[in-house]
Amino acid sequence: MKDTDQGIFAVPGYLFSAVECGIKYENRLDYSLIAAEGNCWCAGMFTTNRIAAAPVQLCRMRIHNPVRAVLINATNANACTGTEGMENAEILTADIARRLDVPEGSVLMASTGVIGRQLPREKMLACHGRLLDLRDGKNGPLVAEAIMTTDTRPKDISERFSTSRGEFTIGGIAKGSGMIAPNMATLLAFLITDAPLPRDILNKSFRSAVNRSLNAITIDGDMSTNDTALLLSPVSDNPLTDEGDIENYKASLQKILGRMARLLVSDGEGTTKTVTVEVINARDEEDARRAARAVGESLLVKTAFFGRDPNWGRIACAAGYSGAEVREENLSIYYGDIPLLLKGRPEPLDAVALADILKEESFTVTVDLGAGTARFSLLTSDISYDYVKINAEYTT
Amino acid sequence: MKDTDQGIFAVPGYLFSAVECGIKYENRLDYSLIAAEGNCWCAGMFTTNRIAAAPVQLCRMRIHNPVRAVLINATNANACTGTEGMENAEILTADIARRLDVPEGSVLMASTGVIGRQLPREKMLACHGRLLDLRDGKNGPLVAEAIMTTDTRPKDISERFSTSRGEFTIGGIAKGSGMIAPNMATLLAFLITDAPLPRDILNKSFRSAVNRSLNAITIDGDMSTNDTALLLSPVSDNPLTDEGDIENYKASLQKILGRMARLLVSDGEGTTKTVTVEVINARDEEDARRAARAVGESLLVKTAFFGRDPNWGRIACAAGYSGAEVREENLSIYYGDIPLLLKGRPEPLDAVALADILKEESFTVTVDLGAGTARFSLLTSDISYDYVKINAEYTT
Repeated sequence: MKDTDQGIFAVPGYLFSAVECGIKYENRLDYSLIAAEGNCWCAGMFTTNRIAAAPVQLCRMRIHNPVRAVLINATNANACTGTEGMENAEILTADIARRLDVPEGSVLMASTGVIGRQLPREKMLACHGRLLDLRDGKNGPLVAEAIMTTDTRPKDISERFSTSRGEFTIGGIAKGSGMIAPNMATLLAFLITDAPLPRDILNKSFRSAVNRSLNAITIDGDMSTNDTALLLSPVSDNPLTDEGDIENYKASLQKILGRMARLLVSDGEGTTKTVTVEVINARDEEDARRAARAVGESLLVKTAFFGRDPNWGRIACAAGYSGAEVREENLSIYYGDIPLLLKGRPEPLDAVALADILKEESFTVTVDLGAGTARFSLLTSDISYDYVKINAEYTT
Repeated sequence: MKDTDQGIFAVPGYLFSAVECGIKYENRLDYSLIAAEGNCWCAGMFTTNRIAAAPVQLCRMRIHNPVRAVLINATNANACTGTEGMENAEILTADIARRLDVPEGSVLMASTGVIGRQLPREKMLACHGRLLDLRDGKNGPLVAEAIMTTDTRPKDISERFSTSRGEFTIGGIAKGSGMIAPNMATLLAFLITDAPLPRDILNKSFRSAVNRSLNAITIDGDMSTNDTALLLSPVSDNPLTDEGDIENYKASLQKILGRMARLLVSDGEGTTKTVTVEVINARDEEDARRAARAVGESLLVKTAFFGRDPNWGRIACAAGYSGAEVREENLSIYYGDIPLLLKGRPEPLDAVALADILKEESFTVTVDLGAGTARFSLLTSDISYDYVKINAEYTT
């Protein structure tokens, strides 16, 4: 049995390969494949950007089919590429399907990189032989590396869970959250499991877990044209249905997605801190989410995190303009366990205790709206000089 | 007659004074007064932040009264200060009213600075004698200086317009747009005119002109607790009503507010460029505004401006997630007159011509949504290293 800490290659039933295709740069892995040994159900979550890349449109059309493989390229987003972009995605996936001897509609695609350029289709087709030949259950780490853009490290993790029918594994790889990188859009996340799950449970559990993890992080607030998260599970006549088994699966899925979210934020461009913005006692969940986003995306709040400034005024201000129901006399703000504002009244600052919290790489800011009982937790980062540097110095 | 290029002191009928009160720092002008010689109607626009500072709440209550004076302090926002904060604003304005021998309800107040600290009321009351003694028609520039926070230069301008009853002047001073400064919230703008205008025309024209100027700029997207813009005009039994006169006044008001908006953005923290985001052919004005804000507030777009990168992909992406109606095949993007994307098709880049535009301190990006006929123009800035520096290094 494979080691669960080793990432997606710990999941039986899937093969991986990655090659240096030279799509935009030479000498880097940029084209990869995840191939299932049998048919899978696939749950998917995609960008809500109205300008959706061709591979996202392709996935949306094919996600309801039994899925056999996911083809992934980095360094070119295949977004704003019109009908030619869509044709390229179709031709590339059709060729993979033909070589795998599976239906065309069973191959999905995901892309990340520069917007507005056509894929070098012939060059990519010429790599398909190697991509197929290199398939191996051990090559998970290569795919994790091949999907990176400006990520500084691959994200490749797994979780094991027990059921009445033995142990199963969920593995996942991901790249860069937010529009982290210069021209490189996109959060891509690919999860696979050997556990055969009923299709409706797969879909619902994935949506719910993503909303509390990958959809609860922000680096720069920009939503890419290519965001894609997929979860594959083998089609089976006899899927897991025992309630306890499903609970274990759900807990494991939430855990791996939570870990993935944290890895993505902590590796965000120029990030030095990972901060949890915990909004509590909101009128409703929509309000909680709104307030958390306003606080977590405020440039002034994020620069204050970087500067280790316990600036609750900026947080109160962001909560105020978020659109959430909030009244000054009900608002409380905490750094860690330390209250800075209690029901609208500023507390005396314990500078030493606050400094201890603010120097941590990771801490929690709690915003109590005092307007209800709903809550939402958002993971955000600070904004440093390096963020500006990385995003300004790159030239198209 | 005063010179129209000299700012608010060019407007007859008003007296100005400013003192070093030491509200937070010594040796800087921080407390000031604009006093009208007679009753004025006052048009006002305020922050829509649900956490509104005490002086904003006070203004909202008194704006319908005849107004005699506006009291302004910098370095303390009097926001998140509860009932004590409101009492302080009331006591300070009441004392000024008593000294001026005018009704309490005729004195407005505006504040900018740190959130969550009480005003040093006694210290401020002790300055009132001097504040009254120093009143003079020539002291406009002192008030323009006294309201500054991290602005690098005072904004003090005027415009003259002709009417059937002779020439009139509109003068205006303003400080820092967006939550520009460390802990210093707020856009404050004070305009005065010697032209007697009908009250309803004053209110409507101000709202309309502010929406196309001060409400059409963004530096960091943070909306302060203290934003306040006021326009004072003398109460008269015989106001201007001639249609041509009113048109001249409106044109002049739009012009001075437009100049003010540009001055504010170009003096934004760490700003090196002022960029007009012109959204055209939107489904409706709300859509045009949405798309302009998404583009003008995108960190990736703003860092690309700083880096002189003609990155239309980031602009397309921001338009896509703005919520505005947009389809890839209808979207066009221009830098200056140069098309980079035409109806969804990338144009060949003329790097030399683009470089000429991008090195300018000021240029226009046009986003054609191809979805209707509405338009909106937003003035934005780039995001530089200095923005992060200024906002991170300050410690509460």
